[in-house]
Amino acid sequence: MVETRPVVSWEHLSAVELTVLERVFWSESMSRGELAALAEFSKSKANTAVASLIGRGVLEERGTQPSSGGRRPETLCLSNGMGVLAGVDIGATSVEVALLAPDMTVLARHGEAADVRTGPTQVLDRVRQVIGALLEQNGLRRDQVLGIGLGVPGPVAFDSGLLVNPPLMPGWESFSIRDFLGEQYLAPVFVDNDVNVMALGTLWHLRRRLRNFLVVKIGTGIGCGIVCHGAVYRGTDGSAGDVGHICVDLSGPRCHCGNLGCVEAVAAGPAIARMADEAARNGESVLLAELLAAKGELTPIDVGAASRAGDVAANAIIKRAGSQIGQMLAAVVNFFNPSHVFIGGGIALTGPLFLASIRQSVYHRSLALSTRHLEIQYVPQAQDAGVIGAGVLALQETMLMARTRRN
Amino acid sequence: MVETRPVVSWEHLSAVELTVLERVFWSESMSRGELAALAEFSKSKANTAVASLIGRGVLEERGTQPSSGGRRPETLCLSNGMGVLAGVDIGATSVEVALLAPDMTVLARHGEAADVRTGPTQVLDRVRQVIGALLEQNGLRRDQVLGIGLGVPGPVAFDSGLLVNPPLMPGWESFSIRDFLGEQYLAPVFVDNDVNVMALGTLWHLRRRLRNFLVVKIGTGIGCGIVCHGAVYRGTDGSAGDVGHICVDLSGPRCHCGNLGCVEAVAAGPAIARMADEAARNGESVLLAELLAAKGELTPIDVGAASRAGDVAANAIIKRAGSQIGQMLAAVVNFFNPSHVFIGGGIALTGPLFLASIRQSVYHRSLALSTRHLEIQYVPQAQDAGVIGAGVLALQETMLMARTRRN
Repeated sequence: MVETRPVVSWEHLSAVELTVLERVFWSESMSRGELAALAEFSKSKANTAVASLIGRGVLEERGTQPSSGGRRPETLCLSNGMGVLAGVDIGATSVEVALLAPDMTVLARHGEAADVRTGPTQVLDRVRQVIGALLEQNGLRRDQVLGIGLGVPGPVAFDSGLLVNPPLMPGWESFSIRDFLGEQYLAPVFVDNDVNVMALGTLWHLRRRLRNFLVVKIGTGIGCGIVCHGAVYRGTDGSAGDVGHICVDLSGPRCHCGNLGCVEAVAAGPAIARMADEAARNGESVLLAELLAAKGELTPIDVGAASRAGDVAANAIIKRAGSQIGQMLAAVVNFFNPSHVFIGGGIALTGPLFLASIRQSVYHRSLALSTRHLEIQYVPQAQDAGVIGAGVLALQETMLMARTRRN
Repeated sequence: MVETRPVVSWEHLSAVELTVLERVFWSESMSRGELAALAEFSKSKANTAVASLIGRGVLEERGTQPSSGGRRPETLCLSNGMGVLAGVDIGATSVEVALLAPDMTVLARHGEAADVRTGPTQVLDRVRQVIGALLEQNGLRRDQVLGIGLGVPGPVAFDSGLLVNPPLMPGWESFSIRDFLGEQYLAPVFVDNDVNVMALGTLWHLRRRLRNFLVVKIGTGIGCGIVCHGAVYRGTDGSAGDVGHICVDLSGPRCHCGNLGCVEAVAAGPAIARMADEAARNGESVLLAELLAAKGELTPIDVGAASRAGDVAANAIIKRAGSQIGQMLAAVVNFFNPSHVFIGGGIALTGPLFLASIRQSVYHRSLALSTRHLEIQYVPQAQDAGVIGAGVLALQETMLMARTRRN
């Protein structure tokens, strides 16, 4: 249960205190001694800041670290008394909302189907209701919300938080999500592309131990979050990582973008569902035909279930999609030479064959040097990656904003 | 003419002095006032550092900036008395060596044909001779060389300066260029991939005004330098930007890497020369046939000359190569969303049709959002970009090394 002290007053924190908070937030476990060694200020300054932050109920000491001889050092962590973060992951066909403690523990969550095409007012009104309900169910007040973070399935101009030319989200362009959600909360609202949010969450989960990696989300579309030099890279117009329209087959079908053979048109969720529908109807797969008859339509999750049950046609569909995604990734890996590629999104839940097909295709097509140390894995904490990323976005940007105002 | 004062003693410079030097090096023109405003230290500290650096003959005031009312401020710049940099650009088939002043003015240069496949000892022995000869011709001593920078046409592990699996440079792997060239000089030696060097030179030329851009070099191979968050990005294994083996035609010819339809196999220098040879022999182009008869073989430069003379076959070759490079770049632009793509290398000299074909292909295949503000241009200072980049590498890394030792 979250305590109910008043939320932190950012404007009363010194620059050193804000730096200490950020350091603790991004560390797995940190003692006072480690903090002083890491930071660019003196040990006495660090200690004063820690004492003040503990006094304010923002920082606390919890558990103990292994002793290196002397007194066991206490681990510093952000206090639950700081308040909570709201993390919102808006997908093309679903919305997930979570309340998170400052250490990104999920305190409460709710997910439901939603259609972003119904427009921002309807979707965000529901988000507002869900946040309110989750707060109430957990005995929390609105003024205990420190920050709200949202991931959305479209390109975002990060500074303004506005969507720019979002292909899956007509009606959202230029709509101020910040103003709409900010109305009821004192807390700031931050918006980013869903894959950038997932990349930020992964960077935090790894505590910045990896500096250059990619997070690829495969769902209704295909997008890629880029971490470069230890920070999320958004590109000149906020559209970096828009890999769904990289061509993998010059003679492939026409994509909604107008070009031929985009990887999104041949290997994302709708393409997988379409191939499954064909296999069900043309007699290639009895199992998929049964599923189609029972459910009325097939999803990638059905294809995954059929594949795990050994269905040959389902396996072929998953292999083909994985191979085409791998071909796109081979180009991206040659260009970016990341240490890791993490695969996430709904389609990632189809099973190990999908990942194996991607790997095979990337290793076959990329240069030996680019793949020498490359690891391709599913996103850690795949189920929560979206909302945790949104929580990290909320807290990280709130602290950054406080620091910028101070300077 | 360069003055002949003794070179700067890095170990005697304070941290503030080193920061001032770096700031001045990366600025177009900077007064004392601007320096103090920019830097993280006080105005009096900045002034003390400037006075000390001028006293040591490392910094000088030159010319004047436009007055904003009061006394006209003097522009600070690195003094020629600091010494010179040696910038070396090793290509697959040529070597360029230059001596540069600390403001990257080319004081002397020499280029000649060379074949990197003859191995490091032969090529670098010649580089050593040329540097020595250029110094002598300009009345300079070896101890006036502040640093040596080299660009090489292969992947480099930047920290060690060693080539890793260089496809065009058999025999260079694990050979210490640093030790070989460092032997005769007190100055440190820095090695990087040729395209990274060109990207660094471009970043310096632009004084970091652009934060996210690409430099594509098209010669015997095709490579890409990446500037991300205002710094050259080299990737996990130093192979970032290795775009030559991105597939642009699944049914294309086999590349030396083993895969089919790599952009390098269909659109780099050798492919252009091969297409020209075919056009000359099969009667498609009288002009190319004449050039072939006169010279015995055709180069991309010949194709460029024929194209500018209106030869239809030459135009078709250039358009085809440009279009395929554009197709590769479309994928890269979707992924990276850079503000600028700069095209360089020998093939860039073929003429405006080549750039037009690249542009057309990129704008056709990329997403509207990624290309909204995208500019595709030739590299600024195309003829000198390699040696200037190597000079920037030498001075920048020498200053960084001094600062690291000081911390």
